[in-house]
Amino acid sequence: MQGYRSHKCSELTAANVGETVRLSGWVHRVRDHGGILFIDLRDHYGITQVLADPDSAAFAELETVRSEWCIRIDGEVKARAPELVNPKLPTGEIEIFIRDMEVLGASAELPLQVFDEPDFPEETRLKYRFLDLRRETLHNNIILRSNVVKSIRNRMGDQGFNEFQTPIITASSPEGARDFLVPSRQHPGKFYALPQAPQQFKQMIMVAGFDKYFQIAPCFRDEDPRADRSPTDFYQLDLEMSFVEQQDVFDTIEPVLKGLFEEFGNGRPVSQDWPQISYKDAALWYGTDKPDLRNPIKMQVVSEHFAGSGFKIFASLLENEGTEIRAIPAPKGGSRKFCDRMNKFAQGEGLPGMGYIFWRDQGEGLEAAGPLAKNIGPERTEAIRQQLGLEVGDAAFFLGGKPAAFESVAGRARTVIGEELELTNKDSFEFAWIVDFPMYERDEETGRVDFSHNPFSMPQGGIEALDAEDPETILGYQYDLACNGYELISGAIRNHKPEIMYKAFELAGYPNEEVNKRFGGMVNAFTYGAPPHGGCAAGIDRIVMLLANEDNIRQVIMFPMNQRAEDLMLNGPSDPTNEQLRELGLRVIPQED
Amino acid sequence: MQGYRSHKCSELTAANVGETVRLSGWVHRVRDHGGILFIDLRDHYGITQVLADPDSAAFAELETVRSEWCIRIDGEVKARAPELVNPKLPTGEIEIFIRDMEVLGASAELPLQVFDEPDFPEETRLKYRFLDLRRETLHNNIILRSNVVKSIRNRMGDQGFNEFQTPIITASSPEGARDFLVPSRQHPGKFYALPQAPQQFKQMIMVAGFDKYFQIAPCFRDEDPRADRSPTDFYQLDLEMSFVEQQDVFDTIEPVLKGLFEEFGNGRPVSQDWPQISYKDAALWYGTDKPDLRNPIKMQVVSEHFAGSGFKIFASLLENEGTEIRAIPAPKGGSRKFCDRMNKFAQGEGLPGMGYIFWRDQGEGLEAAGPLAKNIGPERTEAIRQQLGLEVGDAAFFLGGKPAAFESVAGRARTVIGEELELTNKDSFEFAWIVDFPMYERDEETGRVDFSHNPFSMPQGGIEALDAEDPETILGYQYDLACNGYELISGAIRNHKPEIMYKAFELAGYPNEEVNKRFGGMVNAFTYGAPPHGGCAAGIDRIVMLLANEDNIRQVIMFPMNQRAEDLMLNGPSDPTNEQLRELGLRVIPQED
Repeated sequence: MQGYRSHKCSELTAANVGETVRLSGWVHRVRDHGGILFIDLRDHYGITQVLADPDSAAFAELETVRSEWCIRIDGEVKARAPELVNPKLPTGEIEIFIRDMEVLGASAELPLQVFDEPDFPEETRLKYRFLDLRRETLHNNIILRSNVVKSIRNRMGDQGFNEFQTPIITASSPEGARDFLVPSRQHPGKFYALPQAPQQFKQMIMVAGFDKYFQIAPCFRDEDPRADRSPTDFYQLDLEMSFVEQQDVFDTIEPVLKGLFEEFGNGRPVSQDWPQISYKDAALWYGTDKPDLRNPIKMQVVSEHFAGSGFKIFASLLENEGTEIRAIPAPKGGSRKFCDRMNKFAQGEGLPGMGYIFWRDQGEGLEAAGPLAKNIGPERTEAIRQQLGLEVGDAAFFLGGKPAAFESVAGRARTVIGEELELTNKDSFEFAWIVDFPMYERDEETGRVDFSHNPFSMPQGGIEALDAEDPETILGYQYDLACNGYELISGAIRNHKPEIMYKAFELAGYPNEEVNKRFGGMVNAFTYGAPPHGGCAAGIDRIVMLLANEDNIRQVIMFPMNQRAEDLMLNGPSDPTNEQLRELGLRVIPQED
Repeated sequence: MQGYRSHKCSELTAANVGETVRLSGWVHRVRDHGGILFIDLRDHYGITQVLADPDSAAFAELETVRSEWCIRIDGEVKARAPELVNPKLPTGEIEIFIRDMEVLGASAELPLQVFDEPDFPEETRLKYRFLDLRRETLHNNIILRSNVVKSIRNRMGDQGFNEFQTPIITASSPEGARDFLVPSRQHPGKFYALPQAPQQFKQMIMVAGFDKYFQIAPCFRDEDPRADRSPTDFYQLDLEMSFVEQQDVFDTIEPVLKGLFEEFGNGRPVSQDWPQISYKDAALWYGTDKPDLRNPIKMQVVSEHFAGSGFKIFASLLENEGTEIRAIPAPKGGSRKFCDRMNKFAQGEGLPGMGYIFWRDQGEGLEAAGPLAKNIGPERTEAIRQQLGLEVGDAAFFLGGKPAAFESVAGRARTVIGEELELTNKDSFEFAWIVDFPMYERDEETGRVDFSHNPFSMPQGGIEALDAEDPETILGYQYDLACNGYELISGAIRNHKPEIMYKAFELAGYPNEEVNKRFGGMVNAFTYGAPPHGGCAAGIDRIVMLLANEDNIRQVIMFPMNQRAEDLMLNGPSDPTNEQLRELGLRVIPQED
């Protein structure tokens, strides 16, 4: 018999009754029932009930074991009495009578209980992560993550992709976020950087003629902490393809994600037709470029009904260029109480308030209520109701001004309305591609034009568009995938032509020398027969969070940093030795308190 | 039709004759045969011959394209005349008459030719890696690597292992090699480290109750360059299992590697019975702990034949304690010319020379030749011949002294003899486990005892052995896997008991406080019910090098650093900005020239 186990703690059933077996695992729980010791013995695979009475040679030693001790037991499989069978447990038909036992690893007093998962402060859970990981919730999340990554790899392989590892200690390539730097010992005073994403490498891989690349890629951004972001390393499904257009990328990744969410979504339905919504429409309809389509509310422009109306605030506002009034329909929201609550919400978001109309029937048929309805009069009110398709019991909220100023509040109001009125179907996954992102935006204050998203995307219309159009009207072949209000994927068809790239940067105020300095390696590669290519990257942590129904990223990472970017278990970061600093040619500047 | 291709460049056969198709790829080669332009169009998948005569509308533009331009062509599939069919090419039955073409990416003059892979200096190849990677050899190596990693993952999954990612930005854990450090911005003056291996994390994963872990893990060691080592990041198949003994680890990994080498070894035979050879025997028989068993030569101790003999050098040498004479049998090496050459080899290695005997038949039967045979006389010579099982035409070489002083030279001599005499079968994979490594070794100069290999291994005999034995005689449950002269795997059953760990470190001169300071996180975890566990790590680069028959690690890495740890393509490492240094609280010390 193997030294530690003949079976896993999930395996024994009535079919094994009478066998002598060996199990190893952790003491999940000990109970003393009338002098008989019952232990739930737990390993990675399951739980088996083992027990000993004072006649057992192991009894005295068993009396010393406590929760989370690691032990080995030998014993005989016996059938449980019918009334004691536990149908919830795969091993619930049997129990083991212990003949022999050995303590493999005793435990000091537990700073964190495993059984029943009582609440503990997160700092304790991170310091004793190895205990927290024994708890069912986290243990299952981490296994889910492992299975998800494996499934992604298989699905990408099935689509004809090869996985390649790209360098982790590499050259700095300023791409937006802050680099983590690595000082070079062989070249003191010089620094490597950890990749924010393998963006340049995957494009190089395309230039090198490898048609379809993917990688479960570690990415590193030295950003300030946020609940849904790891402060150090995080993982992306990174992919790139040559000789493709935007729709080809969609057609490739859609079956991968659909299959993945169906496989691990616990039966929650996965939307099958993924709409392609322009960035502009998404902003109008949902107030965000990562809409939650589980929420059926779609906002609309209702400016015409307020222009010249008796509601002076909106009417005079509309006299300014670039302003609009938009409505958030709120089916079933037709009560003054609800409307006042939403008005308060808007005030909490820094707006003066949110106008509303709601429709009721107090025995005399349809009646529009609220101060706004009175100001604009019944005809305009009715026109709004018809445009929005609302009925008795429904409401609508109104926001006005320059859209950029209120769009995001409108988006959040839409979310709150959907949730409070229970319009949002929580148990499904709803996907949408957001397309046609603008290449450029103008800074309101400086008046300067800069890239609004990824500078490496191909502008729609190519060099002609760059030459002819107002930069703010130029769209890019750039896209996101939104799911349930999260951005799951971001990608683009790349700008693979040096002349278009120089021109695109020039429009954003970067002279050629600056482009050569910052992205010289890549632009140089593009001068040697670069193929058209495009791809995207999907956040692994985010995908697992959605599947596991978690909203804290640390619940889906084996060994996360805390929000101050500290490793409480192994104590990082720490002071370097003088020898290390000397070798790297560095000196630490003393910090003021 | 898709914008860039209806088919890959590997797909079209006689079955497609008459179809109008679209292909995209690179101009592998252009030839002008009597006014007709022939282009070998290459993509990731293959090559297709496309052509145009002056009647084609695309002819004028086609005349401008050069090697490695990326182009799209539309055209008609035609059958080649029977005498022009190229049976070596999957598409050799057909060619495409071009009707339309588009330059997708022109190329500047090539600094490195792709077609026919002419030699170029490695610095050029690294700077223009994206071109080098288009060449068949490197392209195939990288695809091989990708397929090998995929196969490893699948095989590990089949063995019940889960892959988990462990942190890359983490705490420093001095384990032997030098850490790469990452300065912390949020904690100026403090540093993270990149993991030399996920050793502590994988042991934590076992303490956390995840039974079987593996990872294709990036590892980081700031070591001085060597041809077979990446100076920055490299990859290991890292694995760990709970509730196992040494043989269980062997039984797990053997089928994975056998399957892998059979799958990708190009038909080269893979040894099926992997011997377990003690470290001590390996040193004696092969002069190394990573023996090449394709070489049949096995060294032997022949001290008795020289003790008190007429060969005074060896006879007096044997009067000192701890000395031995060992023989390297050299079947078919029985010529003075060969023996003299080997003697020179030994002198080149810094020895005074290597004594030899060879056996010949000059018409009067077996005769032992060489000065050594004369000195010790016929009886002793014959006894040596019989012990070594040698015949006419064979030779033997002799080395003497303290084994530690000559073992490695003996090992190299064995290798050279095996190769020169063509005894070594180059076309196979021969594996052996090396076991029973000593836990400790004594520094000859200082007399101090220190760990000889991994301090985290479980000593054989446990705490009792540590208490009772001379440290130098204590063996560890520690093992390597050798293949064809390379160390492919290194591993151990771990020391999971804090009291044994403290004792083991104490014997090597480390007080408990030092252990707590250096490995406190892990030792602490072991006090909370740690399971017995063990595992190993296999070098991915090394495996792929063996399979690809390459001896330069840069031939199996997509984007390697050069030997000065520089990225010539993207220009790393580079100078940090003052802003970056300020944020990190660092100052660069000016270097003297």
